[in-house]
Amino acid sequence: MSEDRLSQQLRFILEMDELKHVLRQTLLPGDQRRENDAEHSWHFALMAVVLAEHAEGDVDPLRVVKMALIHDLVEIDAGDTFAYDEAAHADKEERERAAADRIFALLPAQQSGEMRELWEEFEARESADSCFAAALDRLQPLLLNYASGGDTWRRHGVRRDQVVARNKHIREGAPALWEFAADLIERAVAEGKLEA
Amino acid sequence: MSEDRLSQQLRFILEMDELKHVLRQTLLPGDQRRENDAEHSWHFALMAVVLAEHAEGDVDPLRVVKMALIHDLVEIDAGDTFAYDEAAHADKEERERAAADRIFALLPAQQSGEMRELWEEFEARESADSCFAAALDRLQPLLLNYASGGDTWRRHGVRRDQVVARNKHIREGAPALWEFAADLIERAVAEGKLEA
Repeated sequence: MSEDRLSQQLRFILEMDELKHVLRQTLLPGDQRRENDAEHSWHFALMAVVLAEHAEGDVDPLRVVKMALIHDLVEIDAGDTFAYDEAAHADKEERERAAADRIFALLPAQQSGEMRELWEEFEARESADSCFAAALDRLQPLLLNYASGGDTWRRHGVRRDQVVARNKHIREGAPALWEFAADLIERAVAEGKLEA
Repeated sequence: MSEDRLSQQLRFILEMDELKHVLRQTLLPGDQRRENDAEHSWHFALMAVVLAEHAEGDVDPLRVVKMALIHDLVEIDAGDTFAYDEAAHADKEERERAAADRIFALLPAQQSGEMRELWEEFEARESADSCFAAALDRLQPLLLNYASGGDTWRRHGVRRDQVVARNKHIREGAPALWEFAADLIERAVAEGKLEA
């Protein structure tokens, strides 16, 4: 094992520290502070461990957790794109692809390829692993937004049909979680946290 | 699968959000902000994925990643104990054991037991998985402290022999990482970031 390989991996680890500075729209419940991507990624990974039994189909928990840990690294370069910002979504794919080209290439060649493929798989949302991962990635901010009184939704004028459209693919990865999420959305409307 | 079981798991997930409010002594490089436990746990888990090949012995990457994700949950109740604070370490184990009793019991029975055992294994540092996990848990703040110019060490008057004593068990879990860490400590001294 060459010293160069380890040094290259540790430079990557240190550079990825930047994920802690990429802010999301989600507020932390009981706080006015916005969540950052590293916090979100940890929470998503914890959900992958705790909620694995609710996945649709045969999933590999290690692959799902890896997706959680790396899925937002591209936002170090590309920034966080708010789920309901349609204008910003126009060039999101292009920005994130350029970021992936740079960021995963920081790793040694074979490892770089593995991480890039895992990220591509997550983005494509076709495999059982990536459908479950995508379900958790959506459910996490839904739980926090509800617990924060719907602040993010109200601040951005987001309505129920948009929340349903954006989140209904949770069903593909985890039917029981979608059942819960759909109920949460209705409760949010009934309680005035989300506009009908 | 009863609805109660899923609701119980999701209440756990939401309550664990508090980990984002537990501050560590480590400063984020290029920032004056202290790192929180959720950010640290994400970084530690990412290291477990990227650096798995450097583990001593036969390790199970999924178990190591799970340890990373849950190892600090007890600090939601017990608080973060600074590595070099000997007084606070006197009752650390007692405080963390009481926290583990409450926190892991939030999960459904069998899952609660699994998580508690994993945490106990991490704390005991006897298995290959837990020795590797402990090595990463120590290397992560070492990398950040060095990158921050040794601020945490200087602020608390920590010296080289204390840093070596506190971190040398990295060798048991990952010899190549200890070689790197020992060299980093010497560089920190040579560059005035750490007192000899």
